[in-house]
Amino acid sequence: MTILNQYLNTRQDTEQLCENLTLEDYIPQSAEFASPPKWHIAHTTWFFEEMILKKFIADYKVFNNQFSFVFNSYYNSLGERIERQHRGLITRPSVQEIFKYRAYVDGYITNLLKFNNSEELEALVILGINHEQQHQELLITDLKYTFSLNPIYPKFSEHNYINDKNSDSGWVSIDEGIYTIGHQKEGFCFDNELQLHRIFLEPYHISKKLVTYGEFIEFVTDGGYKNPKYWLDAGWSWVQANNITQPLYWKHTQGKWQHYTLSGLESIHTDGILSHISFYEAHAYATWKGCRLPTEFEWEIASTYFNWGQRWEWTYSAYLPYPKFKISEGAVGEYNGKFMMNQMVLRGASKATSKNHSRHTYRNFFPAETQWQFTGIRLTK
Amino acid sequence: MTILNQYLNTRQDTEQLCENLTLEDYIPQSAEFASPPKWHIAHTTWFFEEMILKKFIADYKVFNNQFSFVFNSYYNSLGERIERQHRGLITRPSVQEIFKYRAYVDGYITNLLKFNNSEELEALVILGINHEQQHQELLITDLKYTFSLNPIYPKFSEHNYINDKNSDSGWVSIDEGIYTIGHQKEGFCFDNELQLHRIFLEPYHISKKLVTYGEFIEFVTDGGYKNPKYWLDAGWSWVQANNITQPLYWKHTQGKWQHYTLSGLESIHTDGILSHISFYEAHAYATWKGCRLPTEFEWEIASTYFNWGQRWEWTYSAYLPYPKFKISEGAVGEYNGKFMMNQMVLRGASKATSKNHSRHTYRNFFPAETQWQFTGIRLTK
Amino acid sequence: MTILNQYLNTRQDTEQLCENLTLEDYIPQSAEFASPPKWHIAHTTWFFEEMILKKFIADYKVFNNQFSFVFNSYYNSLGERIERQHRGLITRPSVQEIFKYRAYVDGYITNLLKFNNSEELEALVILGINHEQQHQELLITDLKYTFSLNPIYPKFSEHNYINDKNSDSGWVSIDEGIYTIGHQKEGFCFDNELQLHRIFLEPYHISKKLVTYGEFIEFVTDGGYKNPKYWLDAGWSWVQANNITQPLYWKHTQGKWQHYTLSGLESIHTDGILSHISFYEAHAYATWKGCRLPTEFEWEIASTYFNWGQRWEWTYSAYLPYPKFKISEGAVGEYNGKFMMNQMVLRGASKATSKNHSRHTYRNFFPAETQWQFTGIRLTK
Amino acid sequence: MTILNQYLNTRQDTEQLCENLTLEDYIPQSAEFASPPKWHIAHTTWFFEEMILKKFIADYKVFNNQFSFVFNSYYNSLGERIERQHRGLITRPSVQEIFKYRAYVDGYITNLLKFNNSEELEALVILGINHEQQHQELLITDLKYTFSLNPIYPKFSEHNYINDKNSDSGWVSIDEGIYTIGHQKEGFCFDNELQLHRIFLEPYHISKKLVTYGEFIEFVTDGGYKNPKYWLDAGWSWVQANNITQPLYWKHTQGKWQHYTLSGLESIHTDGILSHISFYEAHAYATWKGCRLPTEFEWEIASTYFNWGQRWEWTYSAYLPYPKFKISEGAVGEYNGKFMMNQMVLRGASKATSKNHSRHTYRNFFPAETQWQFTGIRLTK
Repeated sequence: MTILNQYLNTRQDTEQLCENLTLEDYIPQSAEFASPPKWHIAHTTWFFEEMILKKFIADYKVFNNQFSFVFNSYYNSLGERIERQHRGLITRPSVQEIFKYRAYVDGYITNLLKFNNSEELEALVILGINHEQQHQELLITDLKYTFSLNPIYPKFSEHNYINDKNSDSGWVSIDEGIYTIGHQKEGFCFDNELQLHRIFLEPYHISKKLVTYGEFIEFVTDGGYKNPKYWLDAGWSWVQANNITQPLYWKHTQGKWQHYTLSGLESIHTDGILSHISFYEAHAYATWKGCRLPTEFEWEIASTYFNWGQRWEWTYSAYLPYPKFKISEGAVGEYNGKFMMNQMVLRGASKATSKNHSRHTYRNFFPAETQWQFTGIRLTK
Repeated sequence: MTILNQYLNTRQDTEQLCENLTLEDYIPQSAEFASPPKWHIAHTTWFFEEMILKKFIADYKVFNNQFSFVFNSYYNSLGERIERQHRGLITRPSVQEIFKYRAYVDGYITNLLKFNNSEELEALVILGINHEQQHQELLITDLKYTFSLNPIYPKFSEHNYINDKNSDSGWVSIDEGIYTIGHQKEGFCFDNELQLHRIFLEPYHISKKLVTYGEFIEFVTDGGYKNPKYWLDAGWSWVQANNITQPLYWKHTQGKWQHYTLSGLESIHTDGILSHISFYEAHAYATWKGCRLPTEFEWEIASTYFNWGQRWEWTYSAYLPYPKFKISEGAVGEYNGKFMMNQMVLRGASKATSKNHSRHTYRNFFPAETQWQFTGIRLTK
Repeated sequence: MTILNQYLNTRQDTEQLCENLTLEDYIPQSAEFASPPKWHIAHTTWFFEEMILKKFIADYKVFNNQFSFVFNSYYNSLGERIERQHRGLITRPSVQEIFKYRAYVDGYITNLLKFNNSEELEALVILGINHEQQHQELLITDLKYTFSLNPIYPKFSEHNYINDKNSDSGWVSIDEGIYTIGHQKEGFCFDNELQLHRIFLEPYHISKKLVTYGEFIEFVTDGGYKNPKYWLDAGWSWVQANNITQPLYWKHTQGKWQHYTLSGLESIHTDGILSHISFYEAHAYATWKGCRLPTEFEWEIASTYFNWGQRWEWTYSAYLPYPKFKISEGAVGEYNGKFMMNQMVLRGASKATSKNHSRHTYRNFFPAETQWQFTGIRLTK
Repeated sequence: MTILNQYLNTRQDTEQLCENLTLEDYIPQSAEFASPPKWHIAHTTWFFEEMILKKFIADYKVFNNQFSFVFNSYYNSLGERIERQHRGLITRPSVQEIFKYRAYVDGYITNLLKFNNSEELEALVILGINHEQQHQELLITDLKYTFSLNPIYPKFSEHNYINDKNSDSGWVSIDEGIYTIGHQKEGFCFDNELQLHRIFLEPYHISKKLVTYGEFIEFVTDGGYKNPKYWLDAGWSWVQANNITQPLYWKHTQGKWQHYTLSGLESIHTDGILSHISFYEAHAYATWKGCRLPTEFEWEIASTYFNWGQRWEWTYSAYLPYPKFKISEGAVGEYNGKFMMNQMVLRGASKATSKNHSRHTYRNFFPAETQWQFTGIRLTK
């Protein structure tokens, strides 16, 4: 597939995700970490304008020169930006105007790709495509979080990214040895996967299946949320400060477990794959079970031996740079490196991850208390 | 005018205020104190349904039984309600659905008023009308606050409620004596104005004019925000904790003063009437000027001698019950009395106050740091 | 008694209060509102040095020029000062050094009063005496608060300021009329009591007795802390945010009520006079009882008809300036006026108030959530 | 040296550290992370009583059964404990009583060690010794933090742990290869150093010298604290939220750099070894210099080639368990493992670290914003 086709497909995918949105749904920001749909569709467009069109088209006329301020996310080197918690207040420009902005930028990118086939351009377009794919998943998770706070439990679509059942079982055993870590194939990867390097692994066993809802209910009913001995100290503080007694989105009414999904409030199926779990909960569960979570290296090496792609899987690896990791020059250098502190690595992908966006070397990362992503648990021992 | 006509006019006024709103504008909540337009138009409708229709129509079928939860503001006796800071997340039901809700309730109220002319009903409808008029002004002030946080400074309408100039001058002198306070005329008033009682006033002088932008700029340029001696202790803490150096909505760029208005960013006219001032700022200005603010009783007695209605005027009276003040039975009793703590009384009305909604005995009230209302300063000595 | 004797007696009283203190007890600050004993005994000395010695003795040599910074409380006009929450960190200078400081200043004041009998000096010394008397009571209440957080419940003394029983009963009835408010006698008063003025009172009845522990236990066991209808909105928020279910210092263990007192943990005697109650609790109790709290004017006028002096009595009057109230020039002007915002007036005195320090025109003031003072409830209707 | 002698020496060392303390100095807690001297000397004693005497002496009579509550630090399995931020309020028991407590426990331990030479006992006593040594260093750092907030800048002693100069220079180069990590020698180590395991290192260069004050001043004057490009995202938020412009304890007055030391306020010597730096500052400095911080494994392997022991050295390794790390049964298991989240590893030791308490495999750990420890920077590339 040509770069142009990849570009156009990705842009179309984003707009297709918006099909079930009402105009009102585009606006709200329900937490500092969760951006409005409108912001996602504008910011991904801004990325192409800011990183590519301004650079490659000599006399490029921006669609609206205020957007540079309004739709910048976190790039300090590109100047001031709106405060993150105010993203839900931008009712104007209108949603319709944002779609015009998308079309405007699409037109220029299309023409640019016809007349310029430099490697540098191609690399940046592919980065922009991957960036937009990341925001596709965020659009879904952020929307779910917003909807979950609406007492009428809105139904967004039949497909809710969560109704998959577990079918695997058993353990994979990996021998000790020197292994190579990092992206080795052709094709795109993020800078944090680069710089191939060797690591030494002691032998370990890793589960072929992800933890199910039913298994986690056992932990809950066994008093798992009330016993500090299963928890990291920071996790226990988090449980107590927020009075947490069960996973995000769960309701316990009249002896039955339900959870909010993008299809509305539903019964929890015990054989479904557990989702929306923080690292702290994942770690406490593993401890209760007499196991542990894998490191990201153990995960990467073993991943050819099990199925993955249903949930983002927490590892007990802090998000840190690989040896010889280099921060790129310019704004692109702010993409990954500066976040390497107090975040944990997740590996794999979820059902909400965009097609063609996953790799076994992919390093996703979130703070340990994160719950609103489609996250799950794979045990190791 | 019949009650029914008053009712219908008020409902129409609300909807007319919404004429310039885009569908997106209905959604955001920019602060805990500022509700979305959508919430205002639904909550005022909820008030009629909850306080009247459920009570007076035997087998009344509610429009949607979830709305009782979603659009309750603060009535503990009417059960649980959505957390105040989540009002901006309710994208569904849609705005269109809320307008249907309005029409549905309007239909029932119209019929009810045709067939029932009890005094109790009439009193509650008039309370509901006045309640909706209060929300009309809030809709404007809340919208202004939201728009002010949008870096593109949206223009809402030509009319911005603020472009009036001061034309009065001089002082009114009032003699000592016993005066009667409270609502004495026919017609509606809130329960907090009732219970006529006598007070004794020492002699005083009160200004016929409100403080202008130009006068307040003198205070600013004289270092008024930097000298604790003009400020109450709580005011000085507020200034320092929030790093306040000028009134809300003001910008000082290239030696010129501008402010955000509902017509967009505009130059400040020195002869315009100052607006959006907190009690703390009003008190500091008065102190700097060698004057003071009036008490609410001084204001009420002198108010027949000067023009008012341009700005809500801060008094140096805490919002407390009048002697013999009685809290009504039931939910209506939560309207006023429970807020009588740590709030200051404002008297008069502003340009954004609804027609037929002002009285010289009217007791408005807000915390001393409040800035987003159309508030001003009248000096006393 | 001469001014000098009054001065020396007051200074001695302070030091006598410290008799049961261990050296360690002088140091801790248990809350921003509660200062360490060491700070109280130094700050009251600083007041005499700063306001009097520096002014009246031409070449006065300060004891230590760093103390001006360390022991200033809140006088902006006297320069920078240590942050309030850091008062408990000043281990050096030593307690012994502070007592030397006291002796040094006492020597100078003694000599000054021998050779100078100007009215201005006398007025300032009397202000300093009254200031120190206020800190004597604070020393006791602050110490009690600190000790209460020590799980071993230390015993400070046999006398705990709280073991008085109620013996009065019945109501006083006051007629409507014009009354004069403010300090009318000879002798010292604070500036906030000055400026005699007339007020008009509607008729009312006020209780001769204060509410007892037993009466308040009825409120608690009737679910008083769980029903929002008795509470002001701000009070209900306070109850919920702090999870308050009973008065400060109370413990409910094995069906019995105990409270921490300066004599240690003791059983609550039902006929004792309730203490350590916030305004919010006082107001909720009065509402539950079908009564209300008096205004400070009602209290002042009726006070010649009942016994008072056991507890500081909450009034439903905000702490605001009397008509014609004037702020003095210089640092002394910061004593009272700048605190006239978001505080409620308390009248009377408590068992911990210094001898000769109470007047029926005295206006004490604290925020509505204040509990650590010896406060009580007198009903009105 | 016998275990008993080691024990007695350690206990004596603690008491010797207290020689310059006034009785007042024992009391204050200046931050949640900094405990009072009194608490350190009691808590270390409590550790021996709780972990050893209660277990090994059949009818052991505790010195005071309230101490179990008052001087527990964070052991959930040993029951409730005083809230951490209230450690500075415990004026009673007195300091003298705490010294009696120490003597009482010392007596029992001495006897116990004479009559029992089980390995289990010996292991626990050695753990208690190492625990007390950790608190010796904390006692110093906590005291410095408290004193630094006293505006008179108290002098504690001539020796201030900071006046060492750098004399090394150049770089050590390490080859790629498989290395073994963890404690391999005889003698005590903490559980987090155990479980020998192999790792693979890519080649690197590490500096023989620590960064000096003069070098860091260059970073400050080059605008290092104002340019986000040198900082991790979390570090930049920390700088902005706390308005940080220079290291802890520094003052810049009249063009000269000074810092608070335990000998009082002193000039900063440019050739002195930088101290009291957070991980964020260390990382920003390294980035500005075009270098990076070492991982804890790089540090451990290279440490035989350079001098260390002057400052705790930040590594860019998160504090995580070694492969096969096992949490011990019982209270001792809470010593290390539960803190393995959101903390960074420091290696080496500082001038304030107790004699015989350092090892090149020692894993110290603190959150990235920690400044009050004697921390420094070693560059890597």
